[in-house]
Amino acid sequence: MDGLQAVRYTRGRLLVLDQLRLPHEYEYDDVQTSEEAFDTIRSMRVRGAPAIAIVATLALAVELVNLDFSSATVVSQQDYINQKLDYLKGSRPTAVDLTNAISLLKQVIAHAGQSSTEAATVREAYIKAAEKILQDDLTTNLAIGRYGAEYLRRQQSPFDIVDEVDRFTTSSSGERIALGKGNRKMSVLTHCNTGALATSGHGTALGIIRTLHNMDYLEHAFCTETRPYNQGSRLTAFELVYENIPATLITDSMAGALFAQLKEEKNISAVIVGADRVARNGDTANKIGTYGLAVLANYHGIKFIVAAPTTSIDLEIASGEDIQIEFRARHELTQISGAVVEADGMVNTSKKARVAIAEQRIDVWNPAFDVTPYRLIDAIITEKGEVVRSKTGTFDFQAIMPERWAVQVEKEALGT
Amino acid sequence: MDGLQAVRYTRGRLLVLDQLRLPHEYEYDDVQTSEEAFDTIRSMRVRGAPAIAIVATLALAVELVNLDFSSATVVSQQDYINQKLDYLKGSRPTAVDLTNAISLLKQVIAHAGQSSTEAATVREAYIKAAEKILQDDLTTNLAIGRYGAEYLRRQQSPFDIVDEVDRFTTSSSGERIALGKGNRKMSVLTHCNTGALATSGHGTALGIIRTLHNMDYLEHAFCTETRPYNQGSRLTAFELVYENIPATLITDSMAGALFAQLKEEKNISAVIVGADRVARNGDTANKIGTYGLAVLANYHGIKFIVAAPTTSIDLEIASGEDIQIEFRARHELTQISGAVVEADGMVNTSKKARVAIAEQRIDVWNPAFDVTPYRLIDAIITEKGEVVRSKTGTFDFQAIMPERWAVQVEKEALGT
Repeated sequence: MDGLQAVRYTRGRLLVLDQLRLPHEYEYDDVQTSEEAFDTIRSMRVRGAPAIAIVATLALAVELVNLDFSSATVVSQQDYINQKLDYLKGSRPTAVDLTNAISLLKQVIAHAGQSSTEAATVREAYIKAAEKILQDDLTTNLAIGRYGAEYLRRQQSPFDIVDEVDRFTTSSSGERIALGKGNRKMSVLTHCNTGALATSGHGTALGIIRTLHNMDYLEHAFCTETRPYNQGSRLTAFELVYENIPATLITDSMAGALFAQLKEEKNISAVIVGADRVARNGDTANKIGTYGLAVLANYHGIKFIVAAPTTSIDLEIASGEDIQIEFRARHELTQISGAVVEADGMVNTSKKARVAIAEQRIDVWNPAFDVTPYRLIDAIITEKGEVVRSKTGTFDFQAIMPERWAVQVEKEALGT
Repeated sequence: MDGLQAVRYTRGRLLVLDQLRLPHEYEYDDVQTSEEAFDTIRSMRVRGAPAIAIVATLALAVELVNLDFSSATVVSQQDYINQKLDYLKGSRPTAVDLTNAISLLKQVIAHAGQSSTEAATVREAYIKAAEKILQDDLTTNLAIGRYGAEYLRRQQSPFDIVDEVDRFTTSSSGERIALGKGNRKMSVLTHCNTGALATSGHGTALGIIRTLHNMDYLEHAFCTETRPYNQGSRLTAFELVYENIPATLITDSMAGALFAQLKEEKNISAVIVGADRVARNGDTANKIGTYGLAVLANYHGIKFIVAAPTTSIDLEIASGEDIQIEFRARHELTQISGAVVEADGMVNTSKKARVAIAEQRIDVWNPAFDVTPYRLIDAIITEKGEVVRSKTGTFDFQAIMPERWAVQVEKEALGT
């Protein structure tokens, strides 16, 4: 895996990019213990649900490689791991990926202990399973990137028969295909940060942009600054510059003017966003501002695409009305932190300041997320292919995850 | 005139609110000369096209009252005033209001010199005319506020027969009318700063909100922060807090979610914005982000209202396509200044800092304005009444300014 990585891992060693120092500094911390991982997560040096799960579980794997467990029994080794996992869960109790990873790993070591009397077998099972979480996340992101890029490329064709017939991509490769007659390179807009920094690498929505760029289908990437926390201007802009992807930053308020002025000139073809959670009908909760972009894309005839691993699709909730929105603190809008710009115009990365950028007494409305209704979404790109909104407005998630659908939806239908 | 004022004037004394120190400090500067006014304008301590014209012309009036001109002749007095006016024009050469005010005042003193041999007559004519510019701007704003508030109130009525028949308000008073059956107090959203701080007082778009509040028709005002220069969070939020108008700040990216979540609960009835320039067909150039708000308002069935004095309506340009958009510097998006927030959370108003809030190497697209097409605008509120978009999509500016229409449009039609 080339390119930017929030996490660099080899067996026995875990390096984690300190995202609090981005974009002005680029430094990795050597995370050697569960306690250091806990602190890294708690202090927000790593962020993004997949990346958090990876750092927590791999830090424990590093411990298991490097510390002396020669006197451990199967049971004491299992106890040690289970206790550390319970402790790590507390670093971000609301993170679904972390909770799921911990449940999986507990099952793995319970199972390993049944078939062996060697503590080393338990350790080895844990380490392999933790490494597989990292590998699986990367595989998922690369698949989302490929399906997303191919889906978007097909939209450029004057003959979109394929999408009329097929619900999701069946092509098996992401190889570079010559831009055919009627095809043009395309420009896209993304929101927030859904890149390598939030995941094992590559990213989801930003992963599609990376793949588009790698396949030479990308003309230009635009990113919003994503107020109030500026994940776009701090993190996405950093990733785009780091990888030399042609890119431009706008304020959230400029998206409409961008579409009106540059849609034709730049062939702006899609808005691509991530998802915190996708409901069964396709309604999608994502970073505040996503919904407004969806309305603007719809008004300008620009595709609106959600990139989400199937783990983000929650079949238990029927629609976005059931998604609880978190409201955050007033000072996120009225104050902001950054590296100090000295009188000579140079950014002093060793000197941080927090400044007031608004009337401090004003009341603030600060939802962290909004919900984009399914009817404004053209396709949801998963690692199992894209799910395109049908002519009747539905998203057929059953096609890409029949087992989960059977368990959840058919069970409900039976009233059980 | 109660309430917040950018300018406090009595004959011989001009106090100008230092807007660079807002919202954290509230201090007036005593402006005694043309040179001090030039510096006040150039350094952005005063902003807003009407306010700039008022400060420049009244500073010279203060000079004429306080300095000794006892030995002046009519001609030397005229020369003195003309030279000072030419000098003041250089403080903001692109400001249309200032240019127009200077032309008017030069005519006034030329005329006064024809009918008198006393230099004092010339001085007195200048002073009275400059004071009238201040008074007229305030009268204009109060009229816009009243017409806008009454127009919006009528939209709340289940019987909007009046608007079906009349093109613009003919009622002559702004007196408080009891909220009738079917009427509710309304909430509105505004963008940028179009308030007392940008004008002689009261304001245009924010003036309508003030009038709604004074008439007890306002439930709640929302304001966007208005990136990248934060006129909304710094200035409009300050004005709303200063006048105890119930108000809430949002980021620009939250407008869509606000409408989706709170339109019914808060009776959000209109987005009200100002205008830098209105074309003959109603297309309106205004602060970047205005266009996106218009699309969102349209999508949610919320009225979109432009508040503009007739001097902002430019009959010489047929449509928004002829309006040149200014692009501004990259660092406006990537850096921001503010008062330092100390470790204890207190804002230290005596200590300013500039901080980097984005990847510094990213390319930036930073248009200062955008153009909202006429078809997204429901009404344009002027000091001569509102002009409502007709069923065929036209704005009948001829009805409110027949003389200017005759000069410009009918002349064009004759091919001269």
